[in-house]
Amino acid sequence: MVTIVQQKSEQAISILREQGVDCWITFVRETTACTDPVLPLIYGPHSLTWQSVLCFSSSGERIAILGRLEEATARATGAYDTILGYDQSIRPSLLETLHRLDPKTIAVNTSTSDFLADGLTSGMRILLLNLLEGTPYASRIISSEKIIRSLRGRKAPGEIERISAAIAATNQIFDEILPALRPGMTELEVADRVRSLVNKRGYGFGWAETNCPAVNTGPNSPIGHNAPTPLLLEPGHIVHFDFGVCKDGYVADLQRVAYLRRPGEDVPPPEVRHAFDTVRRAIEAAKARIQPGTTGLDVDSAARSTVVQAGYPEYNYATGHQLGMLAHDGGGILGPLWEKYADLPRYPIEEKQVYTIEPGIFVPGYGYLGLEEDVVVTSSGAEYLGEPQRDIILPG
Amino acid sequence: MVTIVQQKSEQAISILREQGVDCWITFVRETTACTDPVLPLIYGPHSLTWQSVLCFSSSGERIAILGRLEEATARATGAYDTILGYDQSIRPSLLETLHRLDPKTIAVNTSTSDFLADGLTSGMRILLLNLLEGTPYASRIISSEKIIRSLRGRKAPGEIERISAAIAATNQIFDEILPALRPGMTELEVADRVRSLVNKRGYGFGWAETNCPAVNTGPNSPIGHNAPTPLLLEPGHIVHFDFGVCKDGYVADLQRVAYLRRPGEDVPPPEVRHAFDTVRRAIEAAKARIQPGTTGLDVDSAARSTVVQAGYPEYNYATGHQLGMLAHDGGGILGPLWEKYADLPRYPIEEKQVYTIEPGIFVPGYGYLGLEEDVVVTSSGAEYLGEPQRDIILPG
Repeated sequence: MVTIVQQKSEQAISILREQGVDCWITFVRETTACTDPVLPLIYGPHSLTWQSVLCFSSSGERIAILGRLEEATARATGAYDTILGYDQSIRPSLLETLHRLDPKTIAVNTSTSDFLADGLTSGMRILLLNLLEGTPYASRIISSEKIIRSLRGRKAPGEIERISAAIAATNQIFDEILPALRPGMTELEVADRVRSLVNKRGYGFGWAETNCPAVNTGPNSPIGHNAPTPLLLEPGHIVHFDFGVCKDGYVADLQRVAYLRRPGEDVPPPEVRHAFDTVRRAIEAAKARIQPGTTGLDVDSAARSTVVQAGYPEYNYATGHQLGMLAHDGGGILGPLWEKYADLPRYPIEEKQVYTIEPGIFVPGYGYLGLEEDVVVTSSGAEYLGEPQRDIILPG
Repeated sequence: MVTIVQQKSEQAISILREQGVDCWITFVRETTACTDPVLPLIYGPHSLTWQSVLCFSSSGERIAILGRLEEATARATGAYDTILGYDQSIRPSLLETLHRLDPKTIAVNTSTSDFLADGLTSGMRILLLNLLEGTPYASRIISSEKIIRSLRGRKAPGEIERISAAIAATNQIFDEILPALRPGMTELEVADRVRSLVNKRGYGFGWAETNCPAVNTGPNSPIGHNAPTPLLLEPGHIVHFDFGVCKDGYVADLQRVAYLRRPGEDVPPPEVRHAFDTVRRAIEAAKARIQPGTTGLDVDSAARSTVVQAGYPEYNYATGHQLGMLAHDGGGILGPLWEKYADLPRYPIEEKQVYTIEPGIFVPGYGYLGLEEDVVVTSSGAEYLGEPQRDIILPG
């Protein structure tokens, strides 16, 4: 079976070729204390202790230079053709390798804007420059930001499977929890039930457990990255969830809503139904706009304008972000050109990226109505990974 | 109750005064993906999302500057007197703070030799210099290496208690596993038994679970930081463990050995006994050499020369490292002056540091015989934290 690390290491080579970069180096040490966020993609869950270089070349070589005691682990990843173990110094093997490859460009993991491409520490950067002193290579260093953005973004088949499995597992928990909501429960109690299902089934949490799940009931609950509160669920409340499990190293990120009917109500009031329908339409509009080559800015505007044209104020966050090993899997986002998003919304969408789509509307008097679905980019559009929420849940 | 983070934040102030450094800054972002290894000491287990600065001054101030949504968490640590939340940019609060403190020296977490003092990434270093542009402060930056070395190395009373508890818990698992070893088991099975005991007792793993425990049976097992293999335990094998649990945030790191007797054998063959006795003597020689003010180089040479004088080749790694929240808790090591150890072996040993001592000998035909004990440095020497292995275990 080809592992994800093997798939990713092959993908790295083709991305180097496509971007015209000769060589990409990840330079780390003691990764249990201070890891490079790209390591899970190209080295799996293993740690590297001594100064180590994982080197990919556009000529197709995948080389690991590391402490001799970790050779067997590097070999077991199946992702490296050449494993050069050393006892005392990485210098000889590193310099021989570079002289042999003689790359015109060497990408390293340094970036001011993308923390996922900034795993090279400030001390290691100096060490690398010291190692390269007297060679022509120090002056050939560039940022690997664009390589990592593509490598992380373009999911391998095994990755999409795993994200889908995390989404299915998350939906199963929603299916159990949402119909069982009742007035008189608190946000905290509901969140605890969700967490105990996650633990019972042996999953992890998609992000910090303190706000995974986020649970918001009614109009007075603080929306955002906040922990559930002691607020009571009441009839006439929208109950909103933002939640995802982590399964086999990959996460889901979904938002779901229920409405607690008041006495005599068969269906939610028109304001709530209209908001639900608008959010649904906004998701479909964003999804329909996604295809390789368009920008996140375009997609964001499709969802955002749907909400605004329906008479609502625009939401003050991006329509979506990428998803994978992390809930915020970096690279381009589906967002507007606001300063805090820098140029991330301008990046072209690529096939096999996975995005969330998560517009939302605050319904005065009822609460926050946000939905979030996860989609994969195909050659011609986007497909849902898992069943979207098509109707508002009415417990009881 | 005073928490360890509070103890450490107070210790930081006194170390700044002692070393004559005016100000120490930890500058991080998105620490769930890419953390600074000093954070657990000064911020606990919490994450920081947006650009954040944790600032300590020799005048006694402890200041956290961070995204407004994370103010409550910073306050809850009890380690910061001043918490400055921001919405859009860290710049105003950071510059105001620096102008007010007007430090002559600003230590930041960058180090070529000590990975635990190198949490500032190469991209964040550039961001910091950009923030300080036009101020006198960029030119006042120094490395926090010496501060972090002392802060991390000098264990607070609560820390030594916790390390001792992790060692006791690890020894209990050894006591259960080693006498029960039998020919026909595989390394993988043995490791699984250890792991299930760790999980059952609610501990964590001292390092990456893939090689915690490391289990090596006989002469053909890959020694070092490698995962257990399907190799069978056989009569005539040394079975070697490198293992430690994590308990309450602190880890143990111990090596233990058993010998599986062949039919008719009462005691291990002389080669195995001689290696065991030599490793024991090397540990005692290192321990006897430890006291505040000596160097790790000295201590390493005491153990190393014991092994070499007994007729064995020297082991190709350091005799020991520090231990605490991490299995490799950084700062000075007990090692030789090899390039990969930079100048770490030259650092003076300080009271209340905790070190491993772990020499080893490969016994041809039998396997790897390594022992590892953990000791704390006292005002006049070193003391074992937990009972050392004094005899080879003979299962069956």
